[in-house]
Amino acid sequence: MFRRVTATDVARLAGTSQSAVSRVFTPGASVSPETREKVTAAAAQLGYRPNAIARSLITRRSRIVAVAMAYLNNQFYPDVLEALSDRLQAQGYQILLFTADRHAAADPVLEQVMRYQVDAIVLASTSLSSAFARECRQAGVPVVMFNRTTDDPDLLSVTGDNEQGGHAIARFLAAGGHRRPAFIAGLEASSTNRDRELGFTRGLAEAGQAAPLRAVGHYSYEGAVEATRQLLRRDDRPDAIFCANDHMAIACMDVARHEFGLAVPEDLSVIGFDDVGPARWPSYDLTSYSQPLLPMVDATVEILMECMEDPSRPARGVVLKGSLMVRGSARRPMDWGG
Amino acid sequence: MFRRVTATDVARLAGTSQSAVSRVFTPGASVSPETREKVTAAAAQLGYRPNAIARSLITRRSRIVAVAMAYLNNQFYPDVLEALSDRLQAQGYQILLFTADRHAAADPVLEQVMRYQVDAIVLASTSLSSAFARECRQAGVPVVMFNRTTDDPDLLSVTGDNEQGGHAIARFLAAGGHRRPAFIAGLEASSTNRDRELGFTRGLAEAGQAAPLRAVGHYSYEGAVEATRQLLRRDDRPDAIFCANDHMAIACMDVARHEFGLAVPEDLSVIGFDDVGPARWPSYDLTSYSQPLLPMVDATVEILMECMEDPSRPARGVVLKGSLMVRGSARRPMDWGG
Repeated sequence: MFRRVTATDVARLAGTSQSAVSRVFTPGASVSPETREKVTAAAAQLGYRPNAIARSLITRRSRIVAVAMAYLNNQFYPDVLEALSDRLQAQGYQILLFTADRHAAADPVLEQVMRYQVDAIVLASTSLSSAFARECRQAGVPVVMFNRTTDDPDLLSVTGDNEQGGHAIARFLAAGGHRRPAFIAGLEASSTNRDRELGFTRGLAEAGQAAPLRAVGHYSYEGAVEATRQLLRRDDRPDAIFCANDHMAIACMDVARHEFGLAVPEDLSVIGFDDVGPARWPSYDLTSYSQPLLPMVDATVEILMECMEDPSRPARGVVLKGSLMVRGSARRPMDWGG
Repeated sequence: MFRRVTATDVARLAGTSQSAVSRVFTPGASVSPETREKVTAAAAQLGYRPNAIARSLITRRSRIVAVAMAYLNNQFYPDVLEALSDRLQAQGYQILLFTADRHAAADPVLEQVMRYQVDAIVLASTSLSSAFARECRQAGVPVVMFNRTTDDPDLLSVTGDNEQGGHAIARFLAAGGHRRPAFIAGLEASSTNRDRELGFTRGLAEAGQAAPLRAVGHYSYEGAVEATRQLLRRDDRPDAIFCANDHMAIACMDVARHEFGLAVPEDLSVIGFDDVGPARWPSYDLTSYSQPLLPMVDATVEILMECMEDPSRPARGVVLKGSLMVRGSARRPMDWGG
């Protein structure tokens, strides 16, 4: 084996100080162009690689951000993960991924997070507990809840305007002359589902309509297949279904068309939430409330950087505005145009 | 702030040695049930959390496996990532994720991998260089190429039987009476595309058919939309299209139906590769060659564990058998049944 090349070796060859070598390999550190060039050339010649873990013991920074995520089969989450990873890499951080077991209490897995001395944590799954987030926060590790909120005023969160989105969908359906709207709920304990349903019910009430029919799809394709069957077997079948995410809306359209022989939107309007890639595939052409994914990711990275800089910054909840993407899966109001 | 609870504190309260505490928190280490119970109780009482990074400097194990991946919008990759993370977590390892920039040479990003002193690397993207993998291998860090092969005999790889899959698809289409089959290629430099195309062309030749019509979709939805348009605008339009992955086959079906008004499979048969979730959605009902995802993930984890145990183990290439999932998107041979 080889002797490991050290920063001292690089500094000697480059004719610089060892601290200059360290600064060149620390993202965001100040260093002159000439020094950077000399150090980079020497490092390349020697095959030098800074050891991030040894450095973390000095700087107390591991340059690792833990991301806890489940439901990677809902395209919203892989898209978030890819964007978040790209943005963090650009800042010199990498994601340590924690996938939660969907069928078990998630906290025991998350206990592992603390063992890696991560610099920050992003909780991007609806099934993880706020209690754990609070515990991390108390240990001085910033936590951002992504796509979920909490009543705990000490926690940071970044979400889309879920209630506003549900409200906009109710108004759109009511204005389009729908009279028996239904709602397929996601995970009932999640803040996303609660807020989307609240806004939807409020919007229908404002339009003088009764509370919607309701079934639960647990945010999964299979769950939504069952929920759609329940709703469409009724004698007072709904004329519109708002699904709490696109992943379920796709299942809903598949069942309506291929099991019940219904035309969408002539016999049944379907609306989703998230605006993921498959919503734009012409087979679905799904009307959906768009979550502002890239602004949400950017806000998350910005908050993480601020909190790592200054852990005493007060907590805040960022809510980013989305918009209704009107496509072909739901009947439009007469005066909607398009 | 609090004083950090140490292994010594836990050992004192539990009445055990410090090394017993360490063994309890090392996955796979031997420890008696009574000792485990005493240590776990004391650790819970004190709020003790082992510091994985400090431990990595002692054991020279970071318990981190780097995974380099791109194309997370192709559902195959999120599914791989979730399964791989679940399996590695069960062994006490976590994934450090590296997303490659699709538009740049990927190696500069991968240089970062080495800084974290990871225990092993999984390269699960077609666009990363074998040269980098070889360099890691020389530095004593095991590398497994996932879903790609290389001519380098020093490298480990796990793939499905891509050539066999292409061959099976050619036989299926020929037996179904198709006379003008076409191929939509993925990334032309990738081993998956090369092997699938080789098998397909060989299978057609064995059935007495000419080489297929051909267009390139680069494994992306947008690329496949363009490639499908090229093929379907021809006077000698193909009667079947094999797309080198499902993600492209979905785009191909969307264009054939919604732009060209063709019925699938009456006017055009479409076959994909991977058997991802959307292939099973009734709107597509896509005939596809199934990649054995879970066996591929299991083999990868097994190889990684073996190599971390004994870095001198010889390299090997594991090829796992898939199977043709016959659904409704391609005309079946008369004697196929079903």
